Amino acid sequence: LFIKGYEAVGGKGDEIIDTSICVELLEAYLLIHDDIIDQDKMRRGGFSFHEMTAKWKGDPHFGLSSAIIAGNLLNGLAIQVLIEAPYPQELKMRALTEFINAEINCFHGELYDVILERIDATENDLMRMIDLKTASYTTKAPLIMGAILGNGSEKQIKILSEYGGLLGCAFQIIDDILGTFGDEEILGKPVTSDIEQGKKTLLLVYALDKVKGEELRFLKKCIGTKNISSYEFSRIKEIFEKSGALSYSQNKAAEYVKRAKLVLNLGDFDNESKMFLEELADFVIKRKY
Amino acid sequence: LFIKGYEAVGGKGDEIIDTSICVELLEAYLLIHDDIIDQDKMRRGGFSFHEMTAKWKGDPHFGLSSAIIAGNLLNGLAIQVLIEAPYPQELKMRALTEFINAEINCFHGELYDVILERIDATENDLMRMIDLKTASYTTKAPLIMGAILGNGSEKQIKILSEYGGLLGCAFQIIDDILGTFGDEEILGKPVTSDIEQGKKTLLLVYALDKVKGEELRFLKKCIGTKNISSYEFSRIKEIFEKSGALSYSQNKAAEYVKRAKLVLNLGDFDNESKMFLEELADFVIKRKY
Repeated sequence: LFIKGYEAVGGKGDEIIDTSICVELLEAYLLIHDDIIDQDKMRRGGFSFHEMTAKWKGDPHFGLSSAIIAGNLLNGLAIQVLIEAPYPQELKMRALTEFINAEINCFHGELYDVILERIDATENDLMRMIDLKTASYTTKAPLIMGAILGNGSEKQIKILSEYGGLLGCAFQIIDDILGTFGDEEILGKPVTSDIEQGKKTLLLVYALDKVKGEELRFLKKCIGTKNISSYEFSRIKEIFEKSGALSYSQNKAAEYVKRAKLVLNLGDFDNESKMFLEELADFVIKRKY
Repeated sequence: LFIKGYEAVGGKGDEIIDTSICVELLEAYLLIHDDIIDQDKMRRGGFSFHEMTAKWKGDPHFGLSSAIIAGNLLNGLAIQVLIEAPYPQELKMRALTEFINAEINCFHGELYDVILERIDATENDLMRMIDLKTASYTTKAPLIMGAILGNGSEKQIKILSEYGGLLGCAFQIIDDILGTFGDEEILGKPVTSDIEQGKKTLLLVYALDKVKGEELRFLKKCIGTKNISSYEFSRIKEIFEKSGALSYSQNKAAEYVKRAKLVLNLGDFDNESKMFLEELADFVIKRKY
């Protein structure tokens, strides 16, 4: 997205490829810390960082410590890449401002997430959290930063920012649907883990609001409980389907994608970039992983 | 030090006061994460961040998560302060480069610290770690950044950097002496905690190298052991004194301070700033807290 943002506003040259590593480093930083916070043992089909280093030394606290430090180090390196990038100082400073804003938003979103009680969260709370925690750095900042370094106009930057925000929200809603309804093999993590961790998703927030009586009690009992049975998991999926939570989430994501594509039409981007960004928006809903 | 570095090179204006908050935010970021890594429950006479939030929610994992995120957020805010400071973009970019270099060095030092086995560390290992982990951000970077924003000459910046590095090393050696031989009331933390945590200090590295037989076995047994008795603690202090570790550490710190003051003489700083920096160097050895 960083590179696409750059190309969409007419930016030229291979330097952007080297510079784009800053976004990868940022992502790695946030995921390493996130895996500690979410107590995730798996990442990208292997062990998460803290789990891997804990196993290496046979010491969970070493795993934790090295993962905190490694994440922080990656963030320093990400900013170093940006500082040393071969672009005019003024553009780099603006890109850096967006980079830091994305981080600050993301950490606000994460704090919001850990403080927000899962039972009482409303759809508004949830979407605000997703916008801050995920869309900020996953889609919005990379597009904006690329567009800034590519010398995009204020209008182009604004449109890519809006597109990025909408796309990021759609992305997370679909991600949460796949987290429960997807294929374990393709996902590379257990489909029960979102439920067991009590992750706040649109599926859950909607279902908790709609269902009543025994179903509500059952849902509240299972959410955040380790080692739920396959019967319980099937019943939760059934509740998500029957309550309308699944279709509501799918429609919500489709709506975000539609709005993202409409926003894109307001800009004067070259055809190739626009097509890529439209296809990317469609892909976010159609993907199976 | 940030402000002094600024004044020493002839910088003028109150803006530096507002800008100096970036160093405080950096310090808070690093200390919050450090307290997780060192499992310190106390900081500045109160609970450490993770301990306080863990107590608030009655959940240690909430304490850990919120402390990781809060540290990261403070770092983002620190960089934001620097980006928005009212100085020429070129100077800010240079100051930011030093800020990030200090972070990268500090995290390298921290990784070195957690990986280095405490029994085998040499004095060289230890001093390299202290230079990276402590001097980098405590004394070196603030002075350099202040001097850069104050439009100091290359020579002035270089001298303040050397002074800062030497001072930071002296500071840590004395800090470690006070950690064991200081007054618990004044320190605000138990004098046994460095021993119990197995902290790598010059006292320990020197003593482990000098003592033999039963004393060596006793020292190895106590280091890193929780709840050592007051008899054991007294004996460790005695070993540190009799082996020469205490006086060696004191002399080493005095030597660093002497070199720091000599380096300062090579620069063309105004009298007031020079006197302050000389007094600060002396204070580092004389302090009781």
